[in-house]
Amino acid sequence: MADYAEITYAVDERVATITLNRPEARNGYTIRMSDELGAAMDRADRDEDVRVVVLTGEGKDFCVGADLSQGGFDFDPARGPDPEWQEPAGRCAKRVYTMNKPVIAALRGAAVGGGITITLPCDYRLASTDSKFGFVFTRRGIYPEGASAWFLPRLVGMGTALDWMISGRVFTADEALEKGLVHSVHEPDEVLNKAYELAREIIATTSPVSVAVTRQLLYRMASAETPFPVHALDSKLIGGLGTSPDAIEGVMSFLQKRPPEFGMRVDKDLPPYLPWLSE
Amino acid sequence: MADYAEITYAVDERVATITLNRPEARNGYTIRMSDELGAAMDRADRDEDVRVVVLTGEGKDFCVGADLSQGGFDFDPARGPDPEWQEPAGRCAKRVYTMNKPVIAALRGAAVGGGITITLPCDYRLASTDSKFGFVFTRRGIYPEGASAWFLPRLVGMGTALDWMISGRVFTADEALEKGLVHSVHEPDEVLNKAYELAREIIATTSPVSVAVTRQLLYRMASAETPFPVHALDSKLIGGLGTSPDAIEGVMSFLQKRPPEFGMRVDKDLPPYLPWLSE
Amino acid sequence: MADYAEITYAVDERVATITLNRPEARNGYTIRMSDELGAAMDRADRDEDVRVVVLTGEGKDFCVGADLSQGGFDFDPARGPDPEWQEPAGRCAKRVYTMNKPVIAALRGAAVGGGITITLPCDYRLASTDSKFGFVFTRRGIYPEGASAWFLPRLVGMGTALDWMISGRVFTADEALEKGLVHSVHEPDEVLNKAYELAREIIATTSPVSVAVTRQLLYRMASAETPFPVHALDSKLIGGLGTSPDAIEGVMSFLQKRPPEFGMRVDKDLPPYLPWLSE
Repeated sequence: MADYAEITYAVDERVATITLNRPEARNGYTIRMSDELGAAMDRADRDEDVRVVVLTGEGKDFCVGADLSQGGFDFDPARGPDPEWQEPAGRCAKRVYTMNKPVIAALRGAAVGGGITITLPCDYRLASTDSKFGFVFTRRGIYPEGASAWFLPRLVGMGTALDWMISGRVFTADEALEKGLVHSVHEPDEVLNKAYELAREIIATTSPVSVAVTRQLLYRMASAETPFPVHALDSKLIGGLGTSPDAIEGVMSFLQKRPPEFGMRVDKDLPPYLPWLSE
Repeated sequence: MADYAEITYAVDERVATITLNRPEARNGYTIRMSDELGAAMDRADRDEDVRVVVLTGEGKDFCVGADLSQGGFDFDPARGPDPEWQEPAGRCAKRVYTMNKPVIAALRGAAVGGGITITLPCDYRLASTDSKFGFVFTRRGIYPEGASAWFLPRLVGMGTALDWMISGRVFTADEALEKGLVHSVHEPDEVLNKAYELAREIIATTSPVSVAVTRQLLYRMASAETPFPVHALDSKLIGGLGTSPDAIEGVMSFLQKRPPEFGMRVDKDLPPYLPWLSE
Repeated sequence: MADYAEITYAVDERVATITLNRPEARNGYTIRMSDELGAAMDRADRDEDVRVVVLTGEGKDFCVGADLSQGGFDFDPARGPDPEWQEPAGRCAKRVYTMNKPVIAALRGAAVGGGITITLPCDYRLASTDSKFGFVFTRRGIYPEGASAWFLPRLVGMGTALDWMISGRVFTADEALEKGLVHSVHEPDEVLNKAYELAREIIATTSPVSVAVTRQLLYRMASAETPFPVHALDSKLIGGLGTSPDAIEGVMSFLQKRPPEFGMRVDKDLPPYLPWLSE
């Protein structure tokens, strides 16, 4: 784990915990942090021992957004970046989007700017009573990042997305819960425990391959123009279940009223024709 | 009606009631039920006497999902299905999606797996205080079906869709109402009455052709990349109203403060250029 | 201002107020009103002194929809319109959609038919305790207009959109607030003041160029099939910030804990490669 300087990575009971680790800077987001987050997500996604990822921050804040003290990006400001350059919040957001494993964000204190946009592709955002959220870009003279213009309206509707992103105002956990940005709100000391509780339930009850396919099916097919191509893919998936050990175990454990023991693996048993695998 | 074995079909006061009719198996979903539902929806859609469809279940449950006792699908499990094979929940869901008439689902007890996905394209889902919902696919080692990955995020947003479909947990009518999956919650004995009440109001107040066009306009145009092509179609529709008997009756009945008597028919008077008619 | 007959237009403290001005007809919508609204939106969008637009109605109602007493459209009803003809609600709705400046609708009394569809692309709809809303098209034998089939499901989800548009029923401010159609509800005499309060906050705290880009980014990119092209555009925008005076002022004012003074102009300083500029 010595290879991470600005995050920590730990696996316990099949949960990988990825922690932003610059508490002295309120976990201000940096290029290095972005690269380390990408590497850690890769690692968790490839490790069959990991079923769920919990993303959190060390200290009282999740992340205050881009670290303004670091003065910039990984390119020469005079020349500007290469055409291929990717802004750093999106490097993390896209990697979370493509994950085969669920990611639960456990958020305390500030989650502002990049500190909230990197969490939008997570499956769950759990908030704290002291959470503060803000899509503050218009107030800093800059622009939304991390493909947040794509994720946010899908989570909270276009009206709320316009409100939060045009005004740039900071808002509380209560508003975030009411509008659907977060799944639940807890005491600051309890948020991380609740994330682990949720992770344990997912691990105990679900098939990893089913979760991987479902997660991507939602993200990749929900934007189709009609339900027809979605049903075509559903049919291929359902039609292949006759020889699926997890489907058999799912039915058997259900009929026998016992916890399931799913044996299929994300690294070997994903249906090979899933269109997003060729990306 | 002798041609249905697993559903019933009845028309009264311009409402077709389609009832899942395997109460001894808690209306477990089968290939035959899927085929009969498709045929019944076709019949209701073609019958000009039918204005609204109510979809419900006999007994204490709407549908517990695929009937696990029936061991399978309409193909040889060793060989697998033809490439053209369609999984059975989607056969019903797609037919509801293409209906020209509104479909109101009246749901008691369990609506789980295919028992909820077949209702997602309905115009209304009315729930009961004893309703139990679940997108339980990940807990059975299988995959979402019925193009539910397309419908669900449109109804409840991506955050709730991810929660319900990743966790596979079962939830109550209260949660379904709060998140927007169902329109209202009633006592178990009252759900069907409330569906009929709603059907009667639609029948008394609206133009069948307007309802048919509006329903498809929402489903077909809501996924357009911009509002421009939607407005182009709106303009064609509005520009043709000068010679529309229903538009004249709509204005006259409104000005005369009397109930409208719309005469246009879905089988003859749909604007012929609607892009989805050529499907 | 003598060139407007059915609206008024006034600019004060960087807010353009556009007021439907046929209170004797409850601001019934006409072809002329539609043309004047388009011209007024153009004017506000081009005027660098204008930062925010407030759209409201004179008298006790915002707009009861198409003025039924005016008997028609700007074409010969016998021949029908040209293929290029655009229905009038959409002429306004599309112009609001393409605005670079936020539009706040302040709504009292009736906002029905075209009276609500023209406001759907607004950034905010503020309602009054006496507000009445209705997508009444099916009750008049006509069709949704103003590309409302595109906007409404994005604001309130498909379930509520189907309910409101299939039933055509009239509903109150409370329901509109609960479902997310409106941002807030106020006493009738207070709605316009609240709109100005919100406008003042946007003006005091945000960069006009950031707001223009953010608004269009949400509308144009939210429909992309995946987040990848959105992030590509984000990266171009963020990569260009090194030389952006507003970004520098945004950081400096934040660090110095003072109100920002953004100097960039919408008419000159929009990034030239934004894909929607070539429209």
